[in-house]
Amino acid sequence: MTSSTDSFTLHQQLAQDSLALCTSATSTVRVVRDARFPWLVLVPQLPGLKDLIDLGEADYATVMGEVRQVSGALQRVTACEKLNIASLGNQVPQLHIHIIARFSEDAAWPGPVWGSGPPEPLDAVPRWARDVQAALGDAGWSAP
Amino acid sequence: MTSSTDSFTLHQQLAQDSLALCTSATSTVRVVRDARFPWLVLVPQLPGLKDLIDLGEADYATVMGEVRQVSGALQRVTACEKLNIASLGNQVPQLHIHIIARFSEDAAWPGPVWGSGPPEPLDAVPRWARDVQAALGDAGWSAP
Repeated sequence: MTSSTDSFTLHQQLAQDSLALCTSATSTVRVVRDARFPWLVLVPQLPGLKDLIDLGEADYATVMGEVRQVSGALQRVTACEKLNIASLGNQVPQLHIHIIARFSEDAAWPGPVWGSGPPEPLDAVPRWARDVQAALGDAGWSAP
Repeated sequence: MTSSTDSFTLHQQLAQDSLALCTSATSTVRVVRDARFPWLVLVPQLPGLKDLIDLGEADYATVMGEVRQVSGALQRVTACEKLNIASLGNQVPQLHIHIIARFSEDAAWPGPVWGSGPPEPLDAVPRWARDVQAALGDAGWSAP
């Protein structure tokens, strides 16, 4: 970590579409409010980032290590068939990385989840996400 | 690099849908045959990989560093507005990472490129990709 998180503010759309789950020194992990998929977003809490390569070399390595940690926990908890990891951001310009557990019988398979129809409401952090939170807690992440 | 590429074979669908561009000790970069988008895939040439986290810790760091290098070259060459970076693999199970230059006037914007309609044929490596190849050549990548 070479930068301060002082002037970071979560994008309003991300705040609205997801629920806080846990944080590291660098990033926050949130649960996307769509009950159809076990779907997390990891947001590096550094100001002014749009693309992954906007991260400096050290922060990039840190964030990609966190993506590995979070995807491992999500895979272990959900026993998913496939992980989808993506930084798109065509609609919400603040850098965020999708980490999604996919199953061959899910609502969008084999297509991507984006644009796959209206989300199913999710108003509280679900059980699978609590288990991910616990696994990441063991790895040093904090509750929000 | 801790693994050998000896028993790696490129998935038939990837071979068919893309053109070889350049290689490192670990990975190969190919141009997706869809002229609508400057669209690369990076394929780690290690056998038996499906998800990013199937890479060991050192190989993961190497591959993510290569993704950074390739996306930087693609961004500089195309002057794109956004990069889309994704490991999905719901349809082709061999690990491959999409690195796509996006523009607010492109054929899929602001949606993702996957499922955005039929590809526009691409039979030869286009000029922008030759420029990426040259940039990566300066960084130690080889022609295929």
